[in-house]
Amino acid sequence: MKIVFATKNFHKLREVNIIKPTWIEISPLPDDIPIAPESGDTFLENAVSKAVFYSKILKSSVVADDSGLVIEALNGFPGVQSSRFMEGENYGRKMKKILMMMEDEENRKAKFVCVAVFADVEKGMILSSIGEVKGKIAQEIRGKGGFGYDPIFIPNGFEKTFGELGEEVKSEISHRKRAFEKLFDIIRKLEI
Amino acid sequence: MKIVFATKNFHKLREVNIIKPTWIEISPLPDDIPIAPESGDTFLENAVSKAVFYSKILKSSVVADDSGLVIEALNGFPGVQSSRFMEGENYGRKMKKILMMMEDEENRKAKFVCVAVFADVEKGMILSSIGEVKGKIAQEIRGKGGFGYDPIFIPNGFEKTFGELGEEVKSEISHRKRAFEKLFDIIRKLEI
Repeated sequence: MKIVFATKNFHKLREVNIIKPTWIEISPLPDDIPIAPESGDTFLENAVSKAVFYSKILKSSVVADDSGLVIEALNGFPGVQSSRFMEGENYGRKMKKILMMMEDEENRKAKFVCVAVFADVEKGMILSSIGEVKGKIAQEIRGKGGFGYDPIFIPNGFEKTFGELGEEVKSEISHRKRAFEKLFDIIRKLEI
Repeated sequence: MKIVFATKNFHKLREVNIIKPTWIEISPLPDDIPIAPESGDTFLENAVSKAVFYSKILKSSVVADDSGLVIEALNGFPGVQSSRFMEGENYGRKMKKILMMMEDEENRKAKFVCVAVFADVEKGMILSSIGEVKGKIAQEIRGKGGFGYDPIFIPNGFEKTFGELGEEVKSEISHRKRAFEKLFDIIRKLEI
């Protein structure tokens, strides 16, 4: 089964390619395609609007995701704003800002959340799945692996950040893995 | 399992109540709730936006549908515009207009399409299903049962229109039955 993965993010594409079962073939977005609007206030809405947008343009089955870091002491921030927050700035600066906001904060509980969506508009089909990985916010930026907020997130059961653990470990326990694994399982069960 | 059916249409609510399995309890929208935007250009988008809109407001599981009459000789018209077409006019006038547009047209092939969507935004969950019933456009308005375009649609295998066949027969073979039956089956299979 051929599915386009609606992302321009090379890291995400590699993560999902490691996760996917052999009967699914993932292809990237064409280079010259417009960028989907992403203005919802939930992960679900953002992932749905991306998947539907590209499924309509490409007339094919598409998967998309939206994901982010949800920090308990910051009332869920940055959440759906994880990538839009401090737009234009790199993640080094974004992480520093988060660490400043978390200074002296004892409750460091956080989770990465990913909502994965499959859409095929011609078939009137949409499916989704959620994946979470719980953990805590580190005291400082650690590690160069991964992407986004990985270097300040320590998953439960580990001492290292996602940035230190690297892609091999992350692709085993990540929110994205959990969301896409469940999504591919739903697709298989429903024999689409 | 409790699900709100996002419709203000009494006929749709009754149809789905006949179809639903006993383990699902369908409740209507509260009276004082705002009306969801419905401006997509596919059945899927309209059903998704309704289901998501109400799931967010009500913080509960919601099903919604979008449906319409798709006429081959009219290039799919009225399609997603089935209810918006000639806004404010009753279905008697809408059907007369359709019959005029179909005058002298030999290809009378048509289908009713329904896309049913389940959404629970808090759970990051969305699911959909499509149902179709094929048939043809009658030469004149016949029967007072059903609603919408039922009195000009003759399902394959019958001589009478949906308007003449009445709700008992319609609820056995309708596009809405097919879409919701599949949707409830998906919900059961996935053990949501």
